[in-house]
Amino acid sequence: MAYTKEFIPKKSDNISDWYTAVVMQARLADYGPSRGTMIIRPYGYAIWELIQKALDEKIKAKGVQNAYFPLFIPESFLKREKAHVEGFSPELAVVTIGGGKKLEENLIVRPTSETIMYDAYSRWISSWRDLPLAINQWNNVVRWEMRTYLFLRTTEFLWQEGHTAHATHEEAWEMVVWAINAYEEVYRDYFAMAGYKGIKSDSERFAGAGCTVTFESLMPDGKALQSCTSHDLGQNFAKVFDIKFQDKDSSVKYVWQTSWGFSTRSIGGLVLAHGDDNGLRLPPRLAPYQVVIIPVGAIESVVNECKAISEMLASSGIRVHTDFADGETLVFKINKWELRGVPLRLEVGEREVLHKTFTLTCRDTSQKISVPFTSLAKAVTAELADMQARMLKESEAFLVKNTRVVDSFNKFKEIMAGSRGFIKASWCENPVCEAKIKEETKATTRCRLLDEDEKAGKCVHCGKESRYQWVFGQSY
Amino acid sequence: MAYTKEFIPKKSDNISDWYTAVVMQARLADYGPSRGTMIIRPYGYAIWELIQKALDEKIKAKGVQNAYFPLFIPESFLKREKAHVEGFSPELAVVTIGGGKKLEENLIVRPTSETIMYDAYSRWISSWRDLPLAINQWNNVVRWEMRTYLFLRTTEFLWQEGHTAHATHEEAWEMVVWAINAYEEVYRDYFAMAGYKGIKSDSERFAGAGCTVTFESLMPDGKALQSCTSHDLGQNFAKVFDIKFQDKDSSVKYVWQTSWGFSTRSIGGLVLAHGDDNGLRLPPRLAPYQVVIIPVGAIESVVNECKAISEMLASSGIRVHTDFADGETLVFKINKWELRGVPLRLEVGEREVLHKTFTLTCRDTSQKISVPFTSLAKAVTAELADMQARMLKESEAFLVKNTRVVDSFNKFKEIMAGSRGFIKASWCENPVCEAKIKEETKATTRCRLLDEDEKAGKCVHCGKESRYQWVFGQSY
Repeated sequence: MAYTKEFIPKKSDNISDWYTAVVMQARLADYGPSRGTMIIRPYGYAIWELIQKALDEKIKAKGVQNAYFPLFIPESFLKREKAHVEGFSPELAVVTIGGGKKLEENLIVRPTSETIMYDAYSRWISSWRDLPLAINQWNNVVRWEMRTYLFLRTTEFLWQEGHTAHATHEEAWEMVVWAINAYEEVYRDYFAMAGYKGIKSDSERFAGAGCTVTFESLMPDGKALQSCTSHDLGQNFAKVFDIKFQDKDSSVKYVWQTSWGFSTRSIGGLVLAHGDDNGLRLPPRLAPYQVVIIPVGAIESVVNECKAISEMLASSGIRVHTDFADGETLVFKINKWELRGVPLRLEVGEREVLHKTFTLTCRDTSQKISVPFTSLAKAVTAELADMQARMLKESEAFLVKNTRVVDSFNKFKEIMAGSRGFIKASWCENPVCEAKIKEETKATTRCRLLDEDEKAGKCVHCGKESRYQWVFGQSY
Repeated sequence: MAYTKEFIPKKSDNISDWYTAVVMQARLADYGPSRGTMIIRPYGYAIWELIQKALDEKIKAKGVQNAYFPLFIPESFLKREKAHVEGFSPELAVVTIGGGKKLEENLIVRPTSETIMYDAYSRWISSWRDLPLAINQWNNVVRWEMRTYLFLRTTEFLWQEGHTAHATHEEAWEMVVWAINAYEEVYRDYFAMAGYKGIKSDSERFAGAGCTVTFESLMPDGKALQSCTSHDLGQNFAKVFDIKFQDKDSSVKYVWQTSWGFSTRSIGGLVLAHGDDNGLRLPPRLAPYQVVIIPVGAIESVVNECKAISEMLASSGIRVHTDFADGETLVFKINKWELRGVPLRLEVGEREVLHKTFTLTCRDTSQKISVPFTSLAKAVTAELADMQARMLKESEAFLVKNTRVVDSFNKFKEIMAGSRGFIKASWCENPVCEAKIKEETKATTRCRLLDEDEKAGKCVHCGKESRYQWVFGQSY
């Protein structure tokens, strides 16, 4: 059943069914046997590996070191930070039996690792010389979900979680901003996705954080996707886990902490943002195969030419796949690789071999480009870079077009009942007002832009004095 | 308390205490809060990343693709293969509560992923065109342990598990052998460790396998360490998970399967095998830092020279670290990096700067090599390669020296009561005999060498006819 476009609804008709069909049929993922779980299939996992590589390089260059902490968190640890346990309690998976016996203390399958890491931090940090302590882990976390939405909402997901401890709040805040900037760069340079970077409202921030910074992107149905977050934890955890250091002046202080995470959820955003009625469209830098070569006919000269082109492209650092699969027609193969979103397609038949000239078909625009053999590597490299840039521009234009500055609540409601998108509006920062806006429009505060100054105004809902404009949207 | 050799017992006095002290003080790992768990600290995790890179390249080159399957396995899945569930039942961690509610069916935290993967395989495989299906995952698994022995015996560990399905048994067996050969190469070329590659006896094989191939290395205390395994699963799982394919001739057949794994346990073997009374000794190819530069004094010319050398070495692809840490004496730093097993040490003081000549100290032999600035990169590269080769030779010599061919059971008992090591002896393959040998000598069958032909003889214990010589040893 996979690889057949006929089972895919039009994206504009039903984006949710379209999404699931594309993810399944492009073989990015499949459902797991128990509630909320998913299998990340090789094609989907290859995208995750490319994301990991991009992000891991940035993390290491910043001097953050990778490590690994246990999956199981003693229940008592989680309970130490009040807001943290309240936020996560409804989502926990609990191990009550181990080695055939009922456990004396239940173990929580980590929903995030603040508590188990900071218990260790309290033992490892004693002097200013131990700071900053900056550790990242790539792992799996579990947050119970009743309904699976592949990649976007799953009981288990993969991510990285960075956790740092600093001598001053200033230094911690610098790290919070570094992380969200690194994430934004990965979204921009790899995902070809634009979005807004900003501070969450009090009601939307991470359970246990003093401040959460988010990157919010906009999906084609006008809904917002929280795409990653970076938290200023202040001294909340330091105080409950007793993480203190002796400073240069001999005084003993609590550390200042941050945590920040980027997950496989991002792959869901990638599919939604760029896909079309023919399936996936992968930006070249996250495409497991950047070029697919399809032989037309199985005669020797064609096979040899395919191999020669493949080697040439591979030696230029291009990720290339030649589809020699038996028993599939040319049309089937073309559809398959369109569905799987490969940026460039190159069909090789007798005519092409004879003329030593080949046609590249671009997945994003369907444009065809004719290229002589000797220029292929250069042309492919250039076209991949162009496509990456084109897709980002498309995303940026979509974001701009669908962000509206609004000062009337009627207009606000009208937009949210129609095409949705992001709304920028003044808000008084009163959570009661925020709750009412959500009730009436389904829109929540997404963030207040990180790089934007104060701008006095009147709250779009209650009309009271407001200090900032906020970005609103309906959340995925 | 870390980095101080005074707390490390002599390796020869008490290898177990020595081991734990070295692992803790070199900051490879720490204890986790709940029973049997450990934290892999950045220095230990960096070793794991080097191992992963080496192995992942081989796995990908073989055409095996990475993917990710859920952590939670429905209890009913595990029960389908009888030997499998019997083998793993005593070691399971069980999730009984999810999202605040008691679950209808308990979920097992994966101890290994055969069952959950093969349930998916049965959906993904229908034709010979779908074969071979070859998937690997890098993940965490849980097998309950009462007592932690850092890296070597932990409730949770990290590993890769490869799982393949083939049309014929011949092809599956080729994969089983490929995997154990790849593992042996990684041990030889990266760990600088020799060992024996062979087939496990019926009583020692993996729960659910038809045949298990193992790589067994020898620790300094004469005990054997099962260092990784590769399993020929036959059609055992295919039959219970109903994994069938239509062959070219239209007949419907069960697939033949393999699974193979390599874990963080290997890091324990690495520490035991190569360490000495001064701490770790890391083979250069698995050393997070291959060279440590220690400035002597903080004057500008010394600092600049350290930076220049560091840049030069790094640009030659050498992993280098310069220890500018404040408030530590030269002796402290030397001890620290010896304890952490860095292959080459380079002290830079005024005299060295003046003469533009530097002394490399080799961690394995304590040999000192004087090198002019301009030859440093070349000399370091060559010395790292030499050291890697030296350490492997040492390991090979130790293995040969401590493997004894024995045909008398008295001699067998005497050796196992004394210096231990590996014993090669004829064995009748009767499990009763095997159990008695274990009872009387604590030695178990480790394996029958994969590349060794039949050799008729008399069982070392019962004197009955035997077909092969087997390797015996006391297990870790």
